[in-house]
Amino acid sequence: MKVPFARRIEHVHRSFIREILHFAADPDIISFAGGLPNPDLFPIAALEKAGTAVLREDGRDALQYSTSEGYLPLRRFIAQRYKKTQNLDIAPEEIIITTGSQQGIDLVAKVFLNEGDGVIIEEPGYLGAIQALSFFMPAFHPVSLLDDGVDIDRLEQVLGNGAPRLYYTVSNFQNPSGISYSEEKRRQVAELLKEHPIVLLEDNPYGELRFIGDDVPLIKSFLGDQALLLGSFSKIVAPSLRLGWICGAQEIMDRIIVPKQAADLHTNYLSQRTLHRYLMDNDLDAHIRAITRCYRTQRDAMVDVIERQFPEEVSFTKPEGGMFLWVTLPEGCSAMELFRKALEENVAFVPGEAFHLKGRGANTLRLNYSNVNVTKIEEGMRRLARIIKESLEKAAPVFRGTGTSSASGSL
Amino acid sequence: MKVPFARRIEHVHRSFIREILHFAADPDIISFAGGLPNPDLFPIAALEKAGTAVLREDGRDALQYSTSEGYLPLRRFIAQRYKKTQNLDIAPEEIIITTGSQQGIDLVAKVFLNEGDGVIIEEPGYLGAIQALSFFMPAFHPVSLLDDGVDIDRLEQVLGNGAPRLYYTVSNFQNPSGISYSEEKRRQVAELLKEHPIVLLEDNPYGELRFIGDDVPLIKSFLGDQALLLGSFSKIVAPSLRLGWICGAQEIMDRIIVPKQAADLHTNYLSQRTLHRYLMDNDLDAHIRAITRCYRTQRDAMVDVIERQFPEEVSFTKPEGGMFLWVTLPEGCSAMELFRKALEENVAFVPGEAFHLKGRGANTLRLNYSNVNVTKIEEGMRRLARIIKESLEKAAPVFRGTGTSSASGSL
Repeated sequence: MKVPFARRIEHVHRSFIREILHFAADPDIISFAGGLPNPDLFPIAALEKAGTAVLREDGRDALQYSTSEGYLPLRRFIAQRYKKTQNLDIAPEEIIITTGSQQGIDLVAKVFLNEGDGVIIEEPGYLGAIQALSFFMPAFHPVSLLDDGVDIDRLEQVLGNGAPRLYYTVSNFQNPSGISYSEEKRRQVAELLKEHPIVLLEDNPYGELRFIGDDVPLIKSFLGDQALLLGSFSKIVAPSLRLGWICGAQEIMDRIIVPKQAADLHTNYLSQRTLHRYLMDNDLDAHIRAITRCYRTQRDAMVDVIERQFPEEVSFTKPEGGMFLWVTLPEGCSAMELFRKALEENVAFVPGEAFHLKGRGANTLRLNYSNVNVTKIEEGMRRLARIIKESLEKAAPVFRGTGTSSASGSL
Repeated sequence: MKVPFARRIEHVHRSFIREILHFAADPDIISFAGGLPNPDLFPIAALEKAGTAVLREDGRDALQYSTSEGYLPLRRFIAQRYKKTQNLDIAPEEIIITTGSQQGIDLVAKVFLNEGDGVIIEEPGYLGAIQALSFFMPAFHPVSLLDDGVDIDRLEQVLGNGAPRLYYTVSNFQNPSGISYSEEKRRQVAELLKEHPIVLLEDNPYGELRFIGDDVPLIKSFLGDQALLLGSFSKIVAPSLRLGWICGAQEIMDRIIVPKQAADLHTNYLSQRTLHRYLMDNDLDAHIRAITRCYRTQRDAMVDVIERQFPEEVSFTKPEGGMFLWVTLPEGCSAMELFRKALEENVAFVPGEAFHLKGRGANTLRLNYSNVNVTKIEEGMRRLARIIKESLEKAAPVFRGTGTSSASGSL
């Protein structure tokens, strides 16, 4: 006899980006759609060397079951790096290795969310988080991002209504917008949250990929134990290993470890050992500098075409790091229609609607520059500029001169 | 401000076995407590060779993000193996690679369980499943295992009451009991389930580790699309890679893929590629024969001491495969007390209470033989025999001659 599915899966949808990426896999298409790091920068030989060393020297242990918390020396490395890069005092015991930082979202939801609990998300926001959280049937409260981070007035309103339990943020070079919170905004957010029983889940996969300006402290620096951090090696070493971490106060980690164990017993231990060996034998800072040099060049190439060739009614973000840039077309334009036209010209991107709840953001789009080389960026962006111009010219009576004054100041 | 934890975590407890394994890590202790495969049998050099080949030949792809479904050639290998070993027709598209088969339990719960839904589990049962399912706050209906599988009368009763949605079973060489369902029992179970809207989740991590007797078809063979299979490479290649799979009808897999993606985007892809390369370049059947030869010897050594030296009031299972053996002391005996005494003599095992709900099974215990060599098995089991004898002699007036007649026939 057939079995009905659980209620919760009515609330979760297959990722729209997944579907789009099917198009983008076509090698003839210049794709700004994906969210992939540049594979030219993967430390292939060094990882091979590290893996070989681990298996030869300690293969019996490296292939056996291991602890749910993760490999302690790797957790120590992460703790030391927080001290070095953020001046944050975090004990290795306050870190659990996760199967990608994505897993951390599921674990936090399991520990903190009852059905119907309020969850604050950024709009636009990271789709993978929304999807993972949806399984716990929360009430989402989207808060718009401005140029310098979340809309603080709106955040205050939302905190006052419905007592949300969780606030998910990507505070540095956000996916999809490329926006970072200013230091002032971070302080304001922390001050506000301190007055409410809410956990901040601060996801920071791109924080180390800064190529312009100076690092800004994480919101956790101002908020302390009320904040949990997610981190990832996907963008600074290699994503296929699915190695990330979650970090927070001991009392919370003592709870997080239970669903972690239930989820997959522990994260791939051979890869943890291999990564740790790689980190010991190589200079991660030098490697990250090579990545940011490359992404800066690619980001500049993309910004250059936009500044020179996009109609001036179109606004966009100028990220200081990370992998994404966000474009806002004049109000009323359809990025989905643009997507279809672009695909005919063998160019792909992600229409921004995908990163909003309830079909908002129809005039926005996400562009990825990390996984496309400069020549292709120039060619693809030129095509995109032409298509946008043609679209706006056709729609001229409606769009010309409307709604652009505030466009650069908000998303 | 502090945030309360979600209700569901009141229903889930840290694994008791986890705590016991802390003792068992002491090298002076002869531990029958763990559930680890024998690391002497890990194909270390072959995996190193496979990993090197993958990185050298296709490192850019092998280190990049990949699909949530898993590496298609690996899914093809699994499909072909089902055909070969089980004569089951399964399409590669009906298989999703999971981060250990443990992850499959979480995914199935997400797709099928509403709060309060009935779930049938075996008693004793696999603790990791009970823990993973507990996060979805089901109503557990434990059904006792007999020598030849689940108590079918009790199963029928439970199916009639409360309309359970899910039935979790380890049909071959179960953890913790070592018991396998007879073919007759499998047919009976399938016939019964067909009349009810319930999904069978058939977990088969040990099925390939048969060292006595002939293979019996999986319950899925008799039940078809109402059954989902979990499989694992942990016991036949290496557990640290966390590579398992879930397999079922396309319509269900189309749902399962959504929480899979939300859980960790995809399973470690470098390890999927490495494992697949290993499977192509090596003879898995020969490797499994080496494992079963070894485990048979170790199992025989354990059974031998029990038969010669344990008091005859003590009953036990004689597994035909897998890694565990189950001991039942006379009614009223405390395996927990025995555990404390054994620890003083540097021997460890897991008291059976851990595998039951509500403190049942106090007179039972699980012994693992896969990860202890024969010399240590003989020494450890001799000590255990002595301690059990002493305990029973002290308690002689109460225990002698009670409740043993049926002991070999039930757990």
